[in-house]
Amino acid sequence: MSLDPQRLAPMANAIRALSMDAVQAANSGHPGMPMGMADVATVLWSKFLKFDPSAPDWSDRDRFVLSAGHGSMLIYSLLHLSGYASPTMEEIRNFRQLGSVCAGHPENFLIPGVECTTGPLGQGLAMAVGMAMAERHLNANFGDDLVDHRTWVIAGDGCLMEGINHEAIGLAGHLKLGRMVVLWDDNRITIDGDTDISTSENIRARYEATGWHVVECDGHDFADIDRAIEEALADERPSLVACRTVIGKGAPNKQGGHSVHGAPLGADEIAAAREYLGWTSAPFEVPAEILADWRSTGERGAAAHAEWKSREAGADGAAELARRMAGELPAGDEAYNAYVDSLIADKPKVATRKASQMALEALTAALPDLVGGSADLTGSNLTNTKSTAPFSADDYSGRHVYYGIREFGMAAAMNGMALHGGIIPYGGTFLVFSDYCRNAIRMSALQHTRAIYVMTHDSIGLGEDGPTHQPVEHVMSLRMIPNLLVFRPADALETAEAWALSIKQANRPSVLALSRQNLPAVRADSEMKSAKGAYRLQAAEADRKVVLVATGSEVELAINVRAALEAEGIGADVVSMPCAELFDEQDAAYRADLLPADALKVSIEAGVTMGWERYTGSDGINIGMNSFGASAPANVLFDHFGFTVEKIVPQIKAKLG
Amino acid sequence: MSLDPQRLAPMANAIRALSMDAVQAANSGHPGMPMGMADVATVLWSKFLKFDPSAPDWSDRDRFVLSAGHGSMLIYSLLHLSGYASPTMEEIRNFRQLGSVCAGHPENFLIPGVECTTGPLGQGLAMAVGMAMAERHLNANFGDDLVDHRTWVIAGDGCLMEGINHEAIGLAGHLKLGRMVVLWDDNRITIDGDTDISTSENIRARYEATGWHVVECDGHDFADIDRAIEEALADERPSLVACRTVIGKGAPNKQGGHSVHGAPLGADEIAAAREYLGWTSAPFEVPAEILADWRSTGERGAAAHAEWKSREAGADGAAELARRMAGELPAGDEAYNAYVDSLIADKPKVATRKASQMALEALTAALPDLVGGSADLTGSNLTNTKSTAPFSADDYSGRHVYYGIREFGMAAAMNGMALHGGIIPYGGTFLVFSDYCRNAIRMSALQHTRAIYVMTHDSIGLGEDGPTHQPVEHVMSLRMIPNLLVFRPADALETAEAWALSIKQANRPSVLALSRQNLPAVRADSEMKSAKGAYRLQAAEADRKVVLVATGSEVELAINVRAALEAEGIGADVVSMPCAELFDEQDAAYRADLLPADALKVSIEAGVTMGWERYTGSDGINIGMNSFGASAPANVLFDHFGFTVEKIVPQIKAKLG
Repeated sequence: MSLDPQRLAPMANAIRALSMDAVQAANSGHPGMPMGMADVATVLWSKFLKFDPSAPDWSDRDRFVLSAGHGSMLIYSLLHLSGYASPTMEEIRNFRQLGSVCAGHPENFLIPGVECTTGPLGQGLAMAVGMAMAERHLNANFGDDLVDHRTWVIAGDGCLMEGINHEAIGLAGHLKLGRMVVLWDDNRITIDGDTDISTSENIRARYEATGWHVVECDGHDFADIDRAIEEALADERPSLVACRTVIGKGAPNKQGGHSVHGAPLGADEIAAAREYLGWTSAPFEVPAEILADWRSTGERGAAAHAEWKSREAGADGAAELARRMAGELPAGDEAYNAYVDSLIADKPKVATRKASQMALEALTAALPDLVGGSADLTGSNLTNTKSTAPFSADDYSGRHVYYGIREFGMAAAMNGMALHGGIIPYGGTFLVFSDYCRNAIRMSALQHTRAIYVMTHDSIGLGEDGPTHQPVEHVMSLRMIPNLLVFRPADALETAEAWALSIKQANRPSVLALSRQNLPAVRADSEMKSAKGAYRLQAAEADRKVVLVATGSEVELAINVRAALEAEGIGADVVSMPCAELFDEQDAAYRADLLPADALKVSIEAGVTMGWERYTGSDGINIGMNSFGASAPANVLFDHFGFTVEKIVPQIKAKLG
Repeated sequence: MSLDPQRLAPMANAIRALSMDAVQAANSGHPGMPMGMADVATVLWSKFLKFDPSAPDWSDRDRFVLSAGHGSMLIYSLLHLSGYASPTMEEIRNFRQLGSVCAGHPENFLIPGVECTTGPLGQGLAMAVGMAMAERHLNANFGDDLVDHRTWVIAGDGCLMEGINHEAIGLAGHLKLGRMVVLWDDNRITIDGDTDISTSENIRARYEATGWHVVECDGHDFADIDRAIEEALADERPSLVACRTVIGKGAPNKQGGHSVHGAPLGADEIAAAREYLGWTSAPFEVPAEILADWRSTGERGAAAHAEWKSREAGADGAAELARRMAGELPAGDEAYNAYVDSLIADKPKVATRKASQMALEALTAALPDLVGGSADLTGSNLTNTKSTAPFSADDYSGRHVYYGIREFGMAAAMNGMALHGGIIPYGGTFLVFSDYCRNAIRMSALQHTRAIYVMTHDSIGLGEDGPTHQPVEHVMSLRMIPNLLVFRPADALETAEAWALSIKQANRPSVLALSRQNLPAVRADSEMKSAKGAYRLQAAEADRKVVLVATGSEVELAINVRAALEAEGIGADVVSMPCAELFDEQDAAYRADLLPADALKVSIEAGVTMGWERYTGSDGINIGMNSFGASAPANVLFDHFGFTVEKIVPQIKAKLG
């Protein structure tokens, strides 16, 4: 359609009306951003965004990310007005109510067309970087006919001020992701007041310093918005379009101030806004001709989709792309099975981080969906393989990303890749620095993304680098994030199983907590025992008095403790628990069989003990770390902090009485 | 002393020799940075840094932060060579061994002169911003005669690439912290290889965009280093000195490559380096004349210290400054006691975030050490009071910092302020965004800093903003960080107690998890019951069968559950547990009295249940959240997720049988 301001203005006002009415009805929400960015969004959807409302899962659609997620009524308005099946007007009326898909912040798992869940500031833009990376990677593999789309972002001052913005735009600039356009809602207002109470930054200069193209426009002048976006598309760099806007535009007495950011306008101001905007329809009603103009915005995309389908019909790789975009794994586990057979034969004594790389050698060769990387610790995390050449601006077909020292940016980009589809992302850092990207891991879990975190150096076994680098609370605290699997494998075989299980979780992320130090093989059979989360690795020989439950590097210790107990006639099982979450999902009989009520249960894990009482009861023994670590060689530390047979066996005997 | 290159070069080589020898002896560590930055550090210590080796706690010393903490041998060398009592050469010989103060990364609690613990990249520089803020604030209060020092940082590429760098320099530029100088080890190498595999940024332009002055120098040319630092001092903005260096300078075959970053050089390369540098002394030996030159570097500072002491002797405010720098609280609790009396009289029903502000009104009026702030949520966190005017470049005497949307930068700055001394920092964000600053909270705990985190909107009680904003795992996962107190008060009185207890923790940080929603007063007595972490709020009337343990907003619910049970003749205690860590520190008798073995123990907390088994046993009942929340009004959510009398009482009765 043409960009006739006489038609665009009412379209934008429809967004404003829905936004203020929905926030008012909910008596909570954020009208300022949707009203301020209504004009920009209307131009974007009318002329530029490639979308087909009847096919929100069309793989070659443009991706649109509302990074400033508090402005959720903007995207709900856009989806409804342009003809997506969801949200309905009834759902918009129920904005922010239990059961409505129109949640306070947009949630990808509730509405097709919401590409990712946003609200935690900065992450939407950073996920969009991952989407743009995914697009270029799949383009490199499947060609322009099948993969050729853009990534658009609407971001606010908060998204730009957060630290993750530095990481995200640094990565995007370095990787020359020129098909990414960020529309910045430059309204000079934050929650606390004018932006100048907390920042004096020249954002244009900062973006340019990082390899971005920057263009400015009047965010309330349709022609100027159009010009700026055209300039963005013409430049080969990623673009920031600074849209100078008035927050809450249309609310005559409140616009331009911070009170309009996150609270209902109130009945009086809404009445004034209706008059100001010339909007005479009842709440939640949109005049037919305005709605018709909105519905026509999807026509370009529907036509493009039809053309794409005709190209797809004869294209090489179309079936493979479809498989990948559907998140389905290819049939057959030959590579995995052959690798497991080799482990059973060889029983290698290796660090589980090394075992992870060995498993990845087999898996990355068999599964092109896997795209890995590391936050500048490739040689420590061991995330690269022979199959994963570097992903770079010169070669987007590569499958290993040098993310740089950008843990949070990496994790968000992984989410973006997984949400884009076609890729199973994995990425590494030291486990202790999971703290730096913790909220992105949480967002993986909330968004149901298959992101796999390779977190190495998982305990005081890290050794000399000391307490800043030694995880203590991390394994247990990651277990507390809902919908996340945390694996801490004991040897190369369990590491292989952890990888296989992680890859098969289509709707949840996994963390692999891996050792720096070498660990012996504790098992040599091909049954996928980790699938149940925990299993009896050794059964008591003498009358069973004790069950030792351990994870990761402490399974070897548990085996040695058991041997010492058995030598004294005290029967003890050893239970290996590589994944507590999967164990919790087993039936009560299985759990009770492994952890029987009549035995003294002893947990051994080189991390905090809190949480282990779930498995040992409060009358068990919990061997762990309840302080920070220290700087010394690993074996010295394990002795110092009590992880030896000599220090554990007497505690068990004392408890048995 | 004069900057005679003939004398500086051997001094710098002494750093190189100690660094390569110590790393070799430990068979682990990072020689690249100390060797690369030895020349810069030698100029800094010889001419610019104000320090007195005999008085590392002199309050007006310059602060020196080794943000690139992996290069710890640099600071150990500097402290030893310049005449600090610690580390001794024996301790340097035991670098990275258990019990040596020369840990893998520098730790402030082991060595005076190490101003903060570094290693987690980016945080040293961000803590230095807090130190520079503290210096200006105390200067504004106590004048140039008593407070007039600089903050120096050595940072590497990693520190600059991390997201927190954006937040830290944005804050420093905005606040015009011109007495801060960052010496950037511009060696163009990261662990993974050359910096250009992961970044294309123009760092100079980025810093200038953020209000910084930037100057460059040859980091191996003493005169040029001197010139650059002089230029930095002459500019009123904070300065970045880009020191072009060769990583591992002095190791002829390895310098300039990434292999020298984090591994011992090996005997052959050390021999080659000795020859290259003309260094003929045995390992861990420094020729007397070189040592004498090093020892003379402290003379400037010792003289300055003597002058400062003579000024201090007659100065107004000297005693108060000394009190504040010692971290001692003034005598008397009148303000607190009067406030508590008012609570007992009024029994206000307020959100605990509001109660926090009410407590702060009394405390900030009485205690000038308190300097607060919020990451752009002032009106939500309620961290400001009548006594805390804005801290700004125009008025450093202010006591409320508009941190902007910079949670990680805020938390690190708080650590810096606390480490500087003279300030008890507190700062707020939503509890869910503790994720964004989690490692800085951990660093508060590791560094023993009295930082107080005001984390509001602490559960699904946040309501409509939905699962991205609703903490579920956060309270429990923060409890897992060693040496951190986590308070979740039930009403205004417990909130006041939490504040009083937090302020009295000289050597550990606290988190206050506070409600968005109003909570009734559950208690009206002035005994400081929160000091024991948990206490019996209500005793059973009927024969005790049940103990209900709750925190925060769920204490009210526990009271109502108890009433329903008692009405059916089932006796139940209510235990309020505002701080699990303090409860864990009580003796066994106290703990057993509150949580007796013969009662069914039921925990009620609107967060994950894992961890609660410690207090309820595995045969208790844990009422909590084991999924993400949802978007809806708070009362709807509490009902939906099972936090009602009607849903809890039947579970208890079923368990009692």
